[in-house]
Amino acid sequence: MDRDRILLTPGPLTTTLRTKLAMLKDWGSWDADFNVVTARLRAQLLDVVHGHESHVLVPLQGSGTFSVEAAVATLVPRNGHVLVPDNGAYCKRAARLTQMMGRKATVMPFAEDEPVSAAAVDERLRADPSVTHVVLVHCETGTGVENPLAEVAAVCERHGKGLIVDAMSSFGALPIDARGIRFDALVAASGKCLEGVPGMGFVFIRKAVLDACAGNSQSLAMDLHDQHVYMEKTGQWRFTPPTHVVVALAEAVAQFVEEGGQPARLARYTDNYRTLVDGMAALGFRPFLKPEIQAPIIVTFHAPAHAAYEFKRFYEAAKRRDFILYPGKLTQLETFRVGCIGAIGRNVMQQAVNAVADTLREMGIPNGNPTR
Amino acid sequence: MDRDRILLTPGPLTTTLRTKLAMLKDWGSWDADFNVVTARLRAQLLDVVHGHESHVLVPLQGSGTFSVEAAVATLVPRNGHVLVPDNGAYCKRAARLTQMMGRKATVMPFAEDEPVSAAAVDERLRADPSVTHVVLVHCETGTGVENPLAEVAAVCERHGKGLIVDAMSSFGALPIDARGIRFDALVAASGKCLEGVPGMGFVFIRKAVLDACAGNSQSLAMDLHDQHVYMEKTGQWRFTPPTHVVVALAEAVAQFVEEGGQPARLARYTDNYRTLVDGMAALGFRPFLKPEIQAPIIVTFHAPAHAAYEFKRFYEAAKRRDFILYPGKLTQLETFRVGCIGAIGRNVMQQAVNAVADTLREMGIPNGNPTR
Repeated sequence: MDRDRILLTPGPLTTTLRTKLAMLKDWGSWDADFNVVTARLRAQLLDVVHGHESHVLVPLQGSGTFSVEAAVATLVPRNGHVLVPDNGAYCKRAARLTQMMGRKATVMPFAEDEPVSAAAVDERLRADPSVTHVVLVHCETGTGVENPLAEVAAVCERHGKGLIVDAMSSFGALPIDARGIRFDALVAASGKCLEGVPGMGFVFIRKAVLDACAGNSQSLAMDLHDQHVYMEKTGQWRFTPPTHVVVALAEAVAQFVEEGGQPARLARYTDNYRTLVDGMAALGFRPFLKPEIQAPIIVTFHAPAHAAYEFKRFYEAAKRRDFILYPGKLTQLETFRVGCIGAIGRNVMQQAVNAVADTLREMGIPNGNPTR
Repeated sequence: MDRDRILLTPGPLTTTLRTKLAMLKDWGSWDADFNVVTARLRAQLLDVVHGHESHVLVPLQGSGTFSVEAAVATLVPRNGHVLVPDNGAYCKRAARLTQMMGRKATVMPFAEDEPVSAAAVDERLRADPSVTHVVLVHCETGTGVENPLAEVAAVCERHGKGLIVDAMSSFGALPIDARGIRFDALVAASGKCLEGVPGMGFVFIRKAVLDACAGNSQSLAMDLHDQHVYMEKTGQWRFTPPTHVVVALAEAVAQFVEEGGQPARLARYTDNYRTLVDGMAALGFRPFLKPEIQAPIIVTFHAPAHAAYEFKRFYEAAKRRDFILYPGKLTQLETFRVGCIGAIGRNVMQQAVNAVADTLREMGIPNGNPTR
């Protein structure tokens, strides 16, 4: 094999060689040179959401889920009450981690193939004034549905409730402007649409609520208030940072800026998305979601109805053609997912569609039609 | 500059180019090929402590401190009582994270320039039967002192108490044999004596206590029982692993094995240590610890007494000579630290000593003597 496989997954994803080459150096985590990298990265991430006036940026070691848990632990007081509108697996995870840490969480179920309804959240907040915070998953990676961030944020602001946004798979691709959308915390990670490698997350915290966060967390490692105070004082991370992951993200963000920032990234991903869904439609595949609620991040497809289809064989056959697909995450329906994100463009996406066509042929499946 | 600086720090440290080159590839975290890397790594880490019969190995995203916190959260029941013999900064940190998560912790103070006394721990356990677990820091990186792991483990076993070992900076260098030393959990990380890059920790958990750990953790991300059960079932990490860090560690462990494992690594570090302390002694520097209690991992030196000495200038001058030193962590005394670990040998250590000599000359300090 003379070329790396392409990851059509929601992160880790395919990164550029330039990003990976940044990891060929060891950095002292206490050294001023590394502090400069951290400081510049924090400022550039604030640029992405136009958040310098309103927010601080706190990075955290670990996967994105660690940062979601840290945001809830740091923002929500021990006697807080979190409302989690739930239309997928990552919403359920946010509710679970909230309950595990002893905070009250109420799950508000929605259909998996529909966005969360801001009007329903509005009604719920009116009915139950004990809710202190709403946790919203911006793009629910379980299906790929985009939830109405601006509308839910407006509802939370009207009711005076805190909003914590899991923007893991949307950040850097979908527009998020802190000047127009009020959120108390917004969480994302290195290995998603910024196209870094996985290993760290980061949380934007609204300055107006920062001081009140002191002492909320019962986890030392996940105390974002403590992490922030220490970083402001020393320029350093409290505990050993994943130095190579940090410099790779810094290099990835430099390329993000050079490409034209969020609008350019969204345009490329949208182009990837169209190439994918058009090509797959021509093969008979049907996406799980209606196009108007589908983010151009990750697409859930119904599995073909043909008796010869089996995900494992389908996956392996596509992998032999150098494309890594992703399994579905729905419990009721057989599906698979294809990511549109990462350091790839239309040509690679077309090659992926062609590889799926070849895969179907090899498996003796005439088309991707999900109905017999 | 035509060469990377040498990190004489307790991690992140200098790694080989071969280890870093392993990061030049993107891996799908769901893919079978990556599961093979994880499985082999877990088995090889169990090899290091001869722990296949007695223990399981659970890796965790984040820095080493995340894994220490996870070990306490997972092993100690909510009504448990943890005794922390304290002879340095990392002992204090372990006590603090235990108290923050709502577990009772009793700190047992020792002098910073002495090892923890197993006899005193024995006496304390006899006096207070409410203690359920002891947390011992094996090599206290704050000073570099080696604590008597085998003796404390024997005491804990005799009293029927659980033992959680923070072996962050000793693992891979100092001998730890699970066949002779009983511990319930032992924690280390990727970026220390195994010479990987930072970004993940790992915890050995004794099989006999594993089932009782279910439900202890109030953190989802840090629930090592859940991480273990999921990994056994699927071969995968629960949440996105730091894929590049994992493959770098796998490559580092391969080199660890090729070098001759723990005995060879200890021999190299001991050689580094001797080269360092002999060379520094010739310059008039005096180590903080007596040699018989000093681990050959990181050495704390008293600062020179000369009026021209200032750590920041000393650090910068050594850095200009390509060596990154480490600040002291003692509150009462002015010190600095030099690591003996990482992918370096005697020649580099001698160059470091020579660079310190040149630095003193540049600063107009005749020698490193800490007394006027």
